[in-house]
Amino acid sequence: MTPLILVTNDDGIQAKGLGVLAELMAGLGDVLVMAPETPQSGQSNAITSASPLRFRPVDREGRITRYACTGTPTDCVKMALEAALPAGRQPDLLVSGINHGSNAAINVIYSGTMGAVFEGCECGIPSIGFSLTDHGRDADFTGFAPYVSAIARRVLAEGLPRRVCLNVNAPTGTLRGVRVVRQSDGYWTKGFERRTDPYGRDYYWMTGEFVNSEPQATDTDEWALAQGYVSIVPTRIDLTDYGALQAMKGWESL
Amino acid sequence: MTPLILVTNDDGIQAKGLGVLAELMAGLGDVLVMAPETPQSGQSNAITSASPLRFRPVDREGRITRYACTGTPTDCVKMALEAALPAGRQPDLLVSGINHGSNAAINVIYSGTMGAVFEGCECGIPSIGFSLTDHGRDADFTGFAPYVSAIARRVLAEGLPRRVCLNVNAPTGTLRGVRVVRQSDGYWTKGFERRTDPYGRDYYWMTGEFVNSEPQATDTDEWALAQGYVSIVPTRIDLTDYGALQAMKGWESL
Repeated sequence: MTPLILVTNDDGIQAKGLGVLAELMAGLGDVLVMAPETPQSGQSNAITSASPLRFRPVDREGRITRYACTGTPTDCVKMALEAALPAGRQPDLLVSGINHGSNAAINVIYSGTMGAVFEGCECGIPSIGFSLTDHGRDADFTGFAPYVSAIARRVLAEGLPRRVCLNVNAPTGTLRGVRVVRQSDGYWTKGFERRTDPYGRDYYWMTGEFVNSEPQATDTDEWALAQGYVSIVPTRIDLTDYGALQAMKGWESL
Repeated sequence: MTPLILVTNDDGIQAKGLGVLAELMAGLGDVLVMAPETPQSGQSNAITSASPLRFRPVDREGRITRYACTGTPTDCVKMALEAALPAGRQPDLLVSGINHGSNAAINVIYSGTMGAVFEGCECGIPSIGFSLTDHGRDADFTGFAPYVSAIARRVLAEGLPRRVCLNVNAPTGTLRGVRVVRQSDGYWTKGFERRTDPYGRDYYWMTGEFVNSEPQATDTDEWALAQGYVSIVPTRIDLTDYGALQAMKGWESL
């Protein structure tokens, strides 16, 4: 049977990267898009329970059927699985993106793109997030496109281990190949710009600078991207630190 | 010097669990509370960049200074660290909660309580999330309280490994002690209740049932809670799956 591929993102139904990803996936199977009505960057795994949700059909062209949902990326995945799939079908693959902006290093925890991927992974669907390190509305996905197709094709064929998904990032410019790497250690600093409103009260815009805590390492996603490689980080939703678990057994007698 | 403890939550500045946690921490040090103005359950690690943020002093009583912030739990931590700390001080400990409701198993990825904890962990602060499996506004934290103090005291004294934080949950009723355990495998199902609005259009409320995928296991947080134990899961913000990383090295030649 033709594979069924669920496509979502966090930049919203109108984003260029979503359109590119849906077209690429149409080369591999039937495509169901369920994407947020509005941009949802930085929404992580947020879910909407305090207000109701809706979704609507947008259009249908060839193998691609598009819906838009009023919620977060995680809401979109839940809604697609529960209310929009063809009867009796489960997706064979979930892809999210192509994000306009990096989700490497610690950005994986803030990312709405990756939130959707974690949701798919939890539900047992092989799931991949794709991101390009260019925030521009008209970002050029041309060089990344063949890698996106090849990685998705391989995951469709081989699957992924239970509770493991992929965080795939690419830099701009000419790509040198793929590196399977770990999540770089790092953090955000200089988080806000303070301004004063017309009434004399302070308010704050979130800004920030990412600091790579291990600039010398040659096995991280930040390194791979800086060297012109597509980075693949196998990413887990079992967040248990098994080393610390063993070391802390003594805490059972506090 | 007296330790400085940053306290936040996702149920908001008025939640009973936040007040209980701040009082308990005042037994260990000076307390700075920066909590959301409004409930932020299920906000995960969401950050606010599309609109500005504000915070305001709420009150000061003894060792406890309280602020409220218009953003998410993660925003609260960023704001506290950047704009509300005493000059030249960093928190010695971050605690989040006490949440009204479980954050065991896969709930860790949706939890605003744990989002704040991940943010503190990223910034190198020993960080702990505390949750009680009771959603009630008047939940009884009495039995959990001595465990909360003891765990916080131990983390203050011993610290935690880099990029590791704690997800601590407690059941209601009489507690039998502590178990250091792993995150149970599981997922949410039956995600929505469909209704029809007065204009004949469908809308959806998120609901759901949690399914424990390994009900026989005796080393998970779900098991510990069901047996009447406080569960401690050492939880990592390096999401790399190192086993899969080795297994997938061959993907570098796609």
